[in-house]
Amino acid sequence: MEHPDMNVLVIDVGGTNIKVGGSGHLTPLKIPSGAGFTASQMATAVKAAVTWPFDAVAIGYPGPVVSGRPGHEPVNLGGGWVRFDYADAFGKPVKLINDAAMQALGSYEGGRMLFLGLGTGLGSALVAEGVLEPLELAHLPYRKGRTYEDYVGLRGLERLGRKKWQHHVEAVVALFHHALQVDYVVLGGGQTKKLKGLPPDVRLGSNDNAMVGGVRLWVPATPGRGDPRRHVMPSA
Amino acid sequence: MEHPDMNVLVIDVGGTNIKVGGSGHLTPLKIPSGAGFTASQMATAVKAAVTWPFDAVAIGYPGPVVSGRPGHEPVNLGGGWVRFDYADAFGKPVKLINDAAMQALGSYEGGRMLFLGLGTGLGSALVAEGVLEPLELAHLPYRKGRTYEDYVGLRGLERLGRKKWQHHVEAVVALFHHALQVDYVVLGGGQTKKLKGLPPDVRLGSNDNAMVGGVRLWVPATPGRGDPRRHVMPSA
Repeated sequence: MEHPDMNVLVIDVGGTNIKVGGSGHLTPLKIPSGAGFTASQMATAVKAAVTWPFDAVAIGYPGPVVSGRPGHEPVNLGGGWVRFDYADAFGKPVKLINDAAMQALGSYEGGRMLFLGLGTGLGSALVAEGVLEPLELAHLPYRKGRTYEDYVGLRGLERLGRKKWQHHVEAVVALFHHALQVDYVVLGGGQTKKLKGLPPDVRLGSNDNAMVGGVRLWVPATPGRGDPRRHVMPSA
Repeated sequence: MEHPDMNVLVIDVGGTNIKVGGSGHLTPLKIPSGAGFTASQMATAVKAAVTWPFDAVAIGYPGPVVSGRPGHEPVNLGGGWVRFDYADAFGKPVKLINDAAMQALGSYEGGRMLFLGLGTGLGSALVAEGVLEPLELAHLPYRKGRTYEDYVGLRGLERLGRKKWQHHVEAVVALFHHALQVDYVVLGGGQTKKLKGLPPDVRLGSNDNAMVGGVRLWVPATPGRGDPRRHVMPSA
């Protein structure tokens, strides 16, 4: 099923827009969504908008994904997302992952990368040796009995003001950079536009990376083996 | 150079003993070490004790390892470890990694595993998709301005007493279990013998796992692909 030349349709589901692109269409189309927008409406609108053939579908979902399905209904959209039959609607095989994880996959440039998604909350994912690891760093304790998300999520920005918020974004990046022993950190998510200037080992992700990430979900490859700190072990 | 049948000599360097074993010798010999014990004395003593042939050597080193070499001299042993020519001394190729990382490799039973080493400090490593990721979680903030190591390392045990210390060990395990989205946590290190009873998703590692870990350093294999949350991406 998976082959390097396959044409992947990528759908990035957001609370304001659905972005649609894929192989050869890395600059996405936008379809308005919003509160009340259902999975069925999404499928109908996407199929009407897409004029090119595709072999498989990748969907970035705004919420937790468990075993390839939404863990619960989206917070900022309508219903029907958990039980919807995506493969049936598109007539092609579908892979669905968390939207921050899809952007992380698309942002990867080798080595060990931490992706932090600065949105309403704080998304996180590690990509190392080409392997994506979803993380949930948001609710770990940070300081004064509050969590990382309390400081660098949207509530943190509102409580602290932009300047102090950026100070904590940089402090949190430095803490995780060391703790997770990564080579670089990529910041994505809607709140990154509030940042002014960044430390040299921090990169800003582009939303369009979600399209690359969706394509990569379907492109098989062997992980790199260049890093001497890395050791590939037998499967259990 | 690497092949499945190769005979690996494994050396686990500790502040009290050097343990020596490997392929077909998973229960190690012990050679006394201690303050003042040098890398050269280690090589001489190991070569005198080992009666079987070997093709390659794996060394677990009690300290940080950078690009396959000790990052600095060991705290609880003599000198000469950073600049020592291990391959020359043993006449075979040598891989050297952090001792907690070697035990982690040997403790891996598939899926996503977090290894926490409870010793003087707090060692940590993640193994996911068969890939070892050294971590440095010890110095992240935990509570009241103190770090995880301040609570669950040896100083924590001494300050808090056994019962409160175990309470924090379990709390920290639960935090990281969720934050790093692992399937299970393995506890290793000398202080694990102080633990009484453990939550069901926590396993105790055996020191002898270091021998298995050392052998695995030299055994190449393809990572497992069974977990649908995992996606292998192109090398950069």
